[in-house]
Amino acid sequence: MFPDNSAGALMTPEFICILTGTRARDALQIVRDAGLDSDAIYTLFVTDINRKLLGIMDIRRLLFAEGDEPVETLMQPHPQSVRIDADQQEAARLVRRYDLISLPVVDENGVLAGVIGVDSIVDVIVEENTEDFEKMNALLPSEDSYLNTSAWTLSRHRIPWLLVLMLSSVLAGKLIQGFEDVLAATGVALVASMPMLMDTGGNCGSQTSTVIIRALSLGELKPGDVLKALWKELRVAVVCGFLLGAINFARLAIFGGASLPIAGAISAAMVLTVIFAKALGCLLPLLAEKMHLDPAVMAGPLLTTIVDVGSLLILFELSQIAI
Amino acid sequence: MFPDNSAGALMTPEFICILTGTRARDALQIVRDAGLDSDAIYTLFVTDINRKLLGIMDIRRLLFAEGDEPVETLMQPHPQSVRIDADQQEAARLVRRYDLISLPVVDENGVLAGVIGVDSIVDVIVEENTEDFEKMNALLPSEDSYLNTSAWTLSRHRIPWLLVLMLSSVLAGKLIQGFEDVLAATGVALVASMPMLMDTGGNCGSQTSTVIIRALSLGELKPGDVLKALWKELRVAVVCGFLLGAINFARLAIFGGASLPIAGAISAAMVLTVIFAKALGCLLPLLAEKMHLDPAVMAGPLLTTIVDVGSLLILFELSQIAI
Repeated sequence: MFPDNSAGALMTPEFICILTGTRARDALQIVRDAGLDSDAIYTLFVTDINRKLLGIMDIRRLLFAEGDEPVETLMQPHPQSVRIDADQQEAARLVRRYDLISLPVVDENGVLAGVIGVDSIVDVIVEENTEDFEKMNALLPSEDSYLNTSAWTLSRHRIPWLLVLMLSSVLAGKLIQGFEDVLAATGVALVASMPMLMDTGGNCGSQTSTVIIRALSLGELKPGDVLKALWKELRVAVVCGFLLGAINFARLAIFGGASLPIAGAISAAMVLTVIFAKALGCLLPLLAEKMHLDPAVMAGPLLTTIVDVGSLLILFELSQIAI
Repeated sequence: MFPDNSAGALMTPEFICILTGTRARDALQIVRDAGLDSDAIYTLFVTDINRKLLGIMDIRRLLFAEGDEPVETLMQPHPQSVRIDADQQEAARLVRRYDLISLPVVDENGVLAGVIGVDSIVDVIVEENTEDFEKMNALLPSEDSYLNTSAWTLSRHRIPWLLVLMLSSVLAGKLIQGFEDVLAATGVALVASMPMLMDTGGNCGSQTSTVIIRALSLGELKPGDVLKALWKELRVAVVCGFLLGAINFARLAIFGGASLPIAGAISAAMVLTVIFAKALGCLLPLLAEKMHLDPAVMAGPLLTTIVDVGSLLILFELSQIAI
């Protein structure tokens, strides 16, 4: 009825609704009549005759109220609420920010449609986090707990991304074959630097994309902040890149293993790879979010594969100049 | 006073404690006297004269009770509680599993020391998840939101792991230099297969370690399940490994680029790398948990670096046989 992962799909129709004008003692009776089973008893929702949400009232207010006080003097007007078609993550953010026990769900006219309890929100937070972990690590979403999932089902959840990513890294292989002459001229030093360069690029990219994806999912960052984030990441990349490049150059110069021009090319490639990886780790998830794609899918293992190709291209181009 | 991340550090001393023997109408008066500000009003805690926790009572029970009913007939005995020195994750698991609004914290004698509200648990879950994301992606824990953190602080949080990991991948470089003769004999085909093999190994390892770390943190898996998990992962690895190896062999055989023995060596290395990566991705976090180290730190980027060295060693040893 409601789209998956929407507030509407999450809400329960079990809640206590009090018509404006009701007096405290009658409201208390309504609570009693609602019976013990209703879970959303801690918060009462005050509406007009068309069920438009006017305010919320904590049950404790009723305990302290005079019997003939009308609920509208007791309620808190303009309560936090979430639209029925909003994403469940928005509901989770509101509950988190305002320490709510239950969150009312309204339609486009402000009519109360249901309530989301904090226990559902806790489940949503845990599920969304598990999904992000899975997507960022090349896994299809799981449905059951680990020990209850068969080896066959686990395999089916892992093979699709492994295949896609294996075949995409064929591209990096093709790139290497295109630089056969550079490899022949530089010998083993260049090949020996490949794992270090690719790993560092991958780590730099996933550091940034993790921070950006997390900030997006916690609502700390919006796609509109792309320039602010990029400027921050570029400064971080320059600091990290030059430090790693310098240490790497010192290592190669002191312990040998490469001619000075090749050591220079490898170290310069390190600097540029860090900058490239961090820029991409910042842009990919933000662009994905802007295009309503999933940042975690776009910026997980796919990022590593792109950074691999980029870092090798930088390495071979610079080495070609150096020889 | 209490260790970081313990239930004791998380609890609040603000809660309503009712002595056993109290009648419902007096209990209701105690709730009223506690004032509007007390946050933990929804659940009342029934104790004996030594404050030993006997039961909990939902505030709604008081609304339905006869005035002279004693609280011990209204309360729910043997409530869920958490030890004051327990990890906050255990508190989070209990609140999640039993949909609690508040969780009592007791000392070693069962004496009520405080209460943890569901709002604190929501914050704990979000924080612990952020920490796991950070640790698994080579980041030191952040203290502030992304946009509020300076580029300089971000750099300081990223450089330590980047440095450690860059220097560890020097090992992979040394390994490559030791096989210079194999590289010379096989030419560019072997080098071109390195990104594919290293990336696939890294992806396989992080798929498994992600699933294991997540299951550990959700309490679905315990270090004692190590053999069960390993057996599951080995079967998954054999399925994934042989599939990827076969596809890779077909690709090399059809599109060329390597002699058949070398294509065979590369594909066999793929099978063994997948098995090695998945076994390690399973064992590392479980061993870390058993040794009370952090699974997320042990099994994140460190795993990739070890898998790199392992996969290259397998590749070169098999190629040496093939030439």
